[in-house]
Amino acid sequence: MSEKNFDNMISETEETARQLLEGRNAVLEAFRSGKTIDKLYVLDGCKDGPVQTIVREAKKHDTIIRFVARERLDQLSQTGRHQGVIAQAAAYEYSTVEDILERARQKGEPPFLILLDGIEDPYNLGAIIRTANLAGAHGVIIPKRRAAGLTAVVARTSAGALNYTPVAKVTNLTAVIQQLKKEGIWFVCADMGGELMYRQNLTGPIGLVIGNEGEGVSRLVRENCDMTAAIPMNGDIDSLNASVAAGVLAYEIVRQRMQV
Amino acid sequence: MSEKNFDNMISETEETARQLLEGRNAVLEAFRSGKTIDKLYVLDGCKDGPVQTIVREAKKHDTIIRFVARERLDQLSQTGRHQGVIAQAAAYEYSTVEDILERARQKGEPPFLILLDGIEDPYNLGAIIRTANLAGAHGVIIPKRRAAGLTAVVARTSAGALNYTPVAKVTNLTAVIQQLKKEGIWFVCADMGGELMYRQNLTGPIGLVIGNEGEGVSRLVRENCDMTAAIPMNGDIDSLNASVAAGVLAYEIVRQRMQV
Repeated sequence: MSEKNFDNMISETEETARQLLEGRNAVLEAFRSGKTIDKLYVLDGCKDGPVQTIVREAKKHDTIIRFVARERLDQLSQTGRHQGVIAQAAAYEYSTVEDILERARQKGEPPFLILLDGIEDPYNLGAIIRTANLAGAHGVIIPKRRAAGLTAVVARTSAGALNYTPVAKVTNLTAVIQQLKKEGIWFVCADMGGELMYRQNLTGPIGLVIGNEGEGVSRLVRENCDMTAAIPMNGDIDSLNASVAAGVLAYEIVRQRMQV
Repeated sequence: MSEKNFDNMISETEETARQLLEGRNAVLEAFRSGKTIDKLYVLDGCKDGPVQTIVREAKKHDTIIRFVARERLDQLSQTGRHQGVIAQAAAYEYSTVEDILERARQKGEPPFLILLDGIEDPYNLGAIIRTANLAGAHGVIIPKRRAAGLTAVVARTSAGALNYTPVAKVTNLTAVIQQLKKEGIWFVCADMGGELMYRQNLTGPIGLVIGNEGEGVSRLVRENCDMTAAIPMNGDIDSLNASVAAGVLAYEIVRQRMQV
């Protein structure tokens, strides 16, 4: 069993324990109260009015919807009364990109953001949020799809950082980068084949983009960055662990900002 | 279930899963690549050429051979495709401190060692070995007691680094430090309350000491170090993840050695 599957497994187990909402009223109420729903499971083929209302709400909130067989719902269900819908709520509330920028403004600091292009391992995500907090980053931005969300495992691995460092979840990372570039933020892409990090000017308003564990930063996101930064590699293997790489790069930004 | 217990659990399960090699090609290849095989199980009475070749290889390597019934092989087999041979591979081989120093000598570099004072999480240990490889450290030294050893999880998390970067397991970390100090190696202790890492001279022969996840470096080990190094902390929580901290400190050594 791969590490990734394994983590997904526990993340699901813990989620089951802590964050599943079941039944039509509970789920609809969660959407209407503004609670962040990471994923909605709906009985495939169900045409009931209340279920259709929930699906409409989910679409309105851009929630990921999975149409599944009754067996899958029964398996997920803890109460045995899911009525065809189970919502997976975020363990922690997501912030917005605007909130993160506001935080930088309030501190009177040039924005320092960490963007994660598809980190899938919740341990890595938690460790990176922990690093973001201590490196003085103003927030972390993650994509909605193909990425770990703020599960209980992430919260625990962040060692409390999730209580202080905002995490925003966005539909389109590239669009966010394009928007923030207009506001004067420079984006540096972690790229082991790129320019040595010491040679880049990483002071000023910056967004550090870290790629997926296996594939690095995706092409489109990379093409929208202003520069690349490589960690010197003096060994035999291909790459550092994603959270270690994020830590080393984030602290190069810290060092340059301290003008050491 | 705590993360630690959980990790211990998989480390055991995976060891069972991963240290058995099944099928003629896999087993023969393991012998020919020089992998240490603890025991070879062969289908009793099997006279097939390829199986006889494997038996000859095993005898050449002085491997223990057990001729067993098909039922026993079927029971041991995880893939169901053992083809009459199952090999039990040795646990990962430890190196010695002397080997690590010899490696530095051969490369004509001042020794760069990473000492782990009680890292318990195998994911952290694996990630640190991975970092050690890419930062150009000559080896990793871990204590025998109260620490993760080289399990299959560690090997996997190291992403192949364990094949290149030697790991020595010692009875007494303090005694090793005292010995190596006589040979001119300086020891720097990761200490969040210590001197800022940028202000220390981390060039030359060096041993970087990283503490346990919860308690940091133990008193006795710390007292035997020559200096401390702190990562700047600009946040709200107490500490970085141990493997991230090791990465940031190891790369400060890399930077200073590169004279950037």
